[in-house]
Amino acid sequence: MAGSTFGTLFRVTTAGESHGPGNVVIVDGCPSGLELSEADLSVDLERRRPGQSKVVTQRQESDVPEILSGVFGGKTTGAPIAVLIRNADAKSKDYGNLESVYRPGHADYTLDARFGFRDHRGGGRSSARETTARVAAGAIAKKLLSALFGTDVVGYVVQIGDLRAAIHGPVRLEDVESLPDGSPNIVRCPDHALVPKMIDLIQAMRKAQDSIGGVAEVTARAVPAGLGEPVFDKLKADLAKALFSLPAVLGVEYGIGFDCARLRGSENNDLMYPDVSAAHALPRRAGAPAVHFASNRHGGMLGGISSGEPIVLRAAVKPTSSLPRAQPTIDSAGREAEVQTKGRHDPCLLPRFVPMAEAMVALVLADHALRARAARL
Amino acid sequence: MAGSTFGTLFRVTTAGESHGPGNVVIVDGCPSGLELSEADLSVDLERRRPGQSKVVTQRQESDVPEILSGVFGGKTTGAPIAVLIRNADAKSKDYGNLESVYRPGHADYTLDARFGFRDHRGGGRSSARETTARVAAGAIAKKLLSALFGTDVVGYVVQIGDLRAAIHGPVRLEDVESLPDGSPNIVRCPDHALVPKMIDLIQAMRKAQDSIGGVAEVTARAVPAGLGEPVFDKLKADLAKALFSLPAVLGVEYGIGFDCARLRGSENNDLMYPDVSAAHALPRRAGAPAVHFASNRHGGMLGGISSGEPIVLRAAVKPTSSLPRAQPTIDSAGREAEVQTKGRHDPCLLPRFVPMAEAMVALVLADHALRARAARL
Amino acid sequence: MAGSTFGTLFRVTTAGESHGPGNVVIVDGCPSGLELSEADLSVDLERRRPGQSKVVTQRQESDVPEILSGVFGGKTTGAPIAVLIRNADAKSKDYGNLESVYRPGHADYTLDARFGFRDHRGGGRSSARETTARVAAGAIAKKLLSALFGTDVVGYVVQIGDLRAAIHGPVRLEDVESLPDGSPNIVRCPDHALVPKMIDLIQAMRKAQDSIGGVAEVTARAVPAGLGEPVFDKLKADLAKALFSLPAVLGVEYGIGFDCARLRGSENNDLMYPDVSAAHALPRRAGAPAVHFASNRHGGMLGGISSGEPIVLRAAVKPTSSLPRAQPTIDSAGREAEVQTKGRHDPCLLPRFVPMAEAMVALVLADHALRARAARL
Amino acid sequence: MAGSTFGTLFRVTTAGESHGPGNVVIVDGCPSGLELSEADLSVDLERRRPGQSKVVTQRQESDVPEILSGVFGGKTTGAPIAVLIRNADAKSKDYGNLESVYRPGHADYTLDARFGFRDHRGGGRSSARETTARVAAGAIAKKLLSALFGTDVVGYVVQIGDLRAAIHGPVRLEDVESLPDGSPNIVRCPDHALVPKMIDLIQAMRKAQDSIGGVAEVTARAVPAGLGEPVFDKLKADLAKALFSLPAVLGVEYGIGFDCARLRGSENNDLMYPDVSAAHALPRRAGAPAVHFASNRHGGMLGGISSGEPIVLRAAVKPTSSLPRAQPTIDSAGREAEVQTKGRHDPCLLPRFVPMAEAMVALVLADHALRARAARL
Repeated sequence: MAGSTFGTLFRVTTAGESHGPGNVVIVDGCPSGLELSEADLSVDLERRRPGQSKVVTQRQESDVPEILSGVFGGKTTGAPIAVLIRNADAKSKDYGNLESVYRPGHADYTLDARFGFRDHRGGGRSSARETTARVAAGAIAKKLLSALFGTDVVGYVVQIGDLRAAIHGPVRLEDVESLPDGSPNIVRCPDHALVPKMIDLIQAMRKAQDSIGGVAEVTARAVPAGLGEPVFDKLKADLAKALFSLPAVLGVEYGIGFDCARLRGSENNDLMYPDVSAAHALPRRAGAPAVHFASNRHGGMLGGISSGEPIVLRAAVKPTSSLPRAQPTIDSAGREAEVQTKGRHDPCLLPRFVPMAEAMVALVLADHALRARAARL
Repeated sequence: MAGSTFGTLFRVTTAGESHGPGNVVIVDGCPSGLELSEADLSVDLERRRPGQSKVVTQRQESDVPEILSGVFGGKTTGAPIAVLIRNADAKSKDYGNLESVYRPGHADYTLDARFGFRDHRGGGRSSARETTARVAAGAIAKKLLSALFGTDVVGYVVQIGDLRAAIHGPVRLEDVESLPDGSPNIVRCPDHALVPKMIDLIQAMRKAQDSIGGVAEVTARAVPAGLGEPVFDKLKADLAKALFSLPAVLGVEYGIGFDCARLRGSENNDLMYPDVSAAHALPRRAGAPAVHFASNRHGGMLGGISSGEPIVLRAAVKPTSSLPRAQPTIDSAGREAEVQTKGRHDPCLLPRFVPMAEAMVALVLADHALRARAARL
Repeated sequence: MAGSTFGTLFRVTTAGESHGPGNVVIVDGCPSGLELSEADLSVDLERRRPGQSKVVTQRQESDVPEILSGVFGGKTTGAPIAVLIRNADAKSKDYGNLESVYRPGHADYTLDARFGFRDHRGGGRSSARETTARVAAGAIAKKLLSALFGTDVVGYVVQIGDLRAAIHGPVRLEDVESLPDGSPNIVRCPDHALVPKMIDLIQAMRKAQDSIGGVAEVTARAVPAGLGEPVFDKLKADLAKALFSLPAVLGVEYGIGFDCARLRGSENNDLMYPDVSAAHALPRRAGAPAVHFASNRHGGMLGGISSGEPIVLRAAVKPTSSLPRAQPTIDSAGREAEVQTKGRHDPCLLPRFVPMAEAMVALVLADHALRARAARL
Repeated sequence: MAGSTFGTLFRVTTAGESHGPGNVVIVDGCPSGLELSEADLSVDLERRRPGQSKVVTQRQESDVPEILSGVFGGKTTGAPIAVLIRNADAKSKDYGNLESVYRPGHADYTLDARFGFRDHRGGGRSSARETTARVAAGAIAKKLLSALFGTDVVGYVVQIGDLRAAIHGPVRLEDVESLPDGSPNIVRCPDHALVPKMIDLIQAMRKAQDSIGGVAEVTARAVPAGLGEPVFDKLKADLAKALFSLPAVLGVEYGIGFDCARLRGSENNDLMYPDVSAAHALPRRAGAPAVHFASNRHGGMLGGISSGEPIVLRAAVKPTSSLPRAQPTIDSAGREAEVQTKGRHDPCLLPRFVPMAEAMVALVLADHALRARAARL
């Protein structure tokens, strides 16, 4: 379907369905010499893994990645890196009743309109299971960014239903993954006081045979100024494409986001001051200045090019469409039908959405980091 | 800078700066046999044109397009269509003082970080002037979509500052362009009762040497079900990239958008019912059903593929960064400086943003319409 | 290395090395509804397989393909098709002595110049082993072309050393694969009288610790007129890229090829006459004529677009660079060295080159077949 | 027609027809800071220009380029560079009789099969006139390559009809452009003794209302080792695509070319020796060796990656298909017809083919030079 490849120089191609043998990703364009092993991929795969806690789907997948190429002696060779993650706990019979029924909120009807044919088992290619491939690729992108610039990409939940987190200061990965007592932060919200309420809300949804939406935020720090292209391939454009390519995303905003509509220019402009202490990883011309921004309403990009300030974006994620309760719908013959999804589903997508969103941000930044190298004599 | 091309099969490449000789666009991949003349391009160029009313910049450009290729005997030949729009009223001396100063909110600093070099006159390549090329290309895409499916793409202003429009029912182009008395709707808001207040607000901003943000909405009707790819090239992903590639956009959302975060799945799912009256332009397999959606919180796409419902999106546009008042900033040597932009600028970007946003939506839909043709045996 | 993807709409991405776990290919863009199974892939993989006869390398690989995605119920779904072919008989220790030595005629030195790093085992990514992935993908392309147009792609050997075949009339696959007595045609030359001499020549080369070059021809019949783009993506341009992307190819020509340099226009032009019997698979406008060409010096393409005549091309393949005899060379420290390749190699590449060349031709034709669908209203 | 863009990072998009207003090229991705003016483009445009001598077409075009963007203060800015070259001497009435007739050897029939529609004036998009845009872009690529590595790309004629040049040692541009007495070398053959015979042959063809084919060679010196990708985007693959994308090319070969078929590996391998004097422009890892090749049968590329040796390729160019004499053919209704081309045509394409071929080689090398920058940590 020509649409399974993402990126220009750091280029990712994926294949795989929810209930097929597995998911594959080929990462082409990763520079040679980067240390890489399967353990590097497992960290984020584990954070994305179904069955990781009581607030997510109970499908059990070990999601063990196998690197098939591109690594030799513990380092990337410059050749494409293929990773295979086999499916283990695909229960296709749970989906047998869906062969001819279109589930509300899913791609069943639209896939059929597109291809005249579909693999109905677990959503097929449109299942969020394909994001295993992205998360594996994103882990490679993160390693590359870290090696190039010390860049740090961290995502976290800032809203579930009407529960909105208060975020103060930079969020660290440990704030996302653990609570102060060291126990796992299973909703991935760094506002720890809100965590128990969020868990209760998700559990209430599960009991009510319902689901709930939310908002995740991703911050990328130590992104050098100068990444992004001035017109179509603005960094904000490619990041938005990346985020919206994830299932269930209905909105994306940067920095102050939709609130910019209410502001005056004099209130919104982020002012620049000299900053002799700034360290930027991209080469600058002789005499080029370091800058300090007094604020970051712009979300780390100006004119679509990174400013050196942290990149900050938020994505709105709709409530899971699959519901254990009966919903009216139609079947593929156009007749009225009823659907009740027996598959194992997340009552709230947000906790597992976090590593997916981080991965997509990392893929875009890695691509633009390589693209920026070609821009000057 | 490899980033001036957009689209896969309906592919647009642009060049040009604010104060150079002109802007050029090459539209490659338009099918043969489409009736096309320069007059077709002028309608939207006129809607985008500076100097069109008192609420926009007073730069005077006639923006007359010249078709240089790809049309013969009044029809497209299948060859690339090149369009040239010369700049006339470029007052570079207004920008002489900006040679070494970075304007707040602009790409001056980031372009320098990217290329080590910039054309400081009017923002150079990062000026919104480059969107003339997009609007010309978008007019071709609109003609193609209309010929293929009868698709209709209409944009309009739904918010300026705290003034929010109430939109009831489908918005027609005439509601956007004209007031009930036939006079021009210079803010392009279809909530006509709000128009005078919006004009007053913009004029007040101009007097205060300030600017104001807002939100535009674009609706595309008669888009057949089945456009878009299931993974990276989701229609919502490509549309978002298109919108965020325009200057000053800080947020994009579809259908219910960020409000989905507060909803339950049972509240958010749009239910499907049989609809024998629906007419869809894309071929369907024998026996494929027509569908009626009871609601359109999904904004016309499910799983990233069009559902046949109208595509509805909103973009948040920040207040114009250029201000006639003095603002503190730095210069390219890193010294403190002050900047006061003498160039002619829009006190509110929204009225002229509307045709730009329509153009980008049309380009994406035209591309995916051609892509969908290849998807089946 | 961003260079592992081929094609625009029928798009192939490969990964894998000679001595890694295996080779993978993702075929993205294959239309839905095509019947496909692993057995379809095995036919050509078997023709490409090492160890298939006494005139090829004695490396033993079963080359069993596993389809990981994109096929459901025996048909393609429109989702990307991933195929994995594991390596079995990789004898890396045979290459241990090559860790620091650059083999003459190989990419050892140039890969090092490119990546500063290489997987020296069996040539790594530059080994012809990566063509397993292409042959698997090519088999899918052949099935698609056959389903769309009844297209038939057949390759064969026309020269080894100074032995040149006489080809009379269309060559059938059975002429390439079998001798009149039903025994396998292990050199794949349809001039059966020449076959024993070719076998003797190759065996003599093996005994002499040497190798020999040759020429292969590929013919594609039942390619409809109208495939290819007029400028950069001419069909002849994309086919040439495809052929030259195979290892060891030093020349490609179409139809009369290099002999055209000696001819006059009046001798070279292929004249057209009306042909009411021609059947063309691509849609033609009402009243468009069918044509009969009196000759095919043009090799099936005019202006880079297929003419409906058979596409005929030839590729010159150099003698295998790996030799069992000692050759002087340098090592990666720049010192004089000597190399003697102990790995198992083909004394003549041509017999196994044939399915690789067919695969590349099929990939290009499938891509352009899909592209041509988008060209008209 | 999506096929008017060439290159990945140094990316060229063209538009224009033989008898339309003009030809346009957008060069996207040229690094910032390169000195560039219209005079830089005119040198090669002049070498390509019709009417330059008695052995070429007498169409009179001044081919003056106008740079529309991407250059500021005499240097490239990193923004796309648009160049417009207007058509002046288009005599469309000469082509009036061709409206419904398919010329033998031309794309008339195949374009119609592709698009169902064509601009019959002078071949429309398939005319060699579109190569003005390529030559302008190629001149920019040459400047970039010269600035990066001191690379030198020179093309020349090595065969016309049965007249084959003897080439000894490196060919300099002055050998191609001038004879020893300083007069112009109008056939661009560096074997000066053969020049009068070639001129006589071409003039004889013109008198006989006929045309003649030939072979051109292009040599690129000072190309650093390490350009090209190991699999699909081999340098030899991209160069071949580039050459075959030019009109009338029926064969391309590198180094020893088709003669490799007759050789043994022990005769064909080019041996490597240490070379402490070599200077390579690409960064090498610490301790990486410099190499001296004893011969260059490989044509400057091994495994598809440049070796540092000169890149040497030859292209076979067919005799001009347009003939002033009457030729039988068919018309677009499929009836027998006769055609006699009154337009002004080259009796031999080779002299003007030389700058076109150089341009395409330069475009590919510039693209891969930028691509190689991204390959390592």
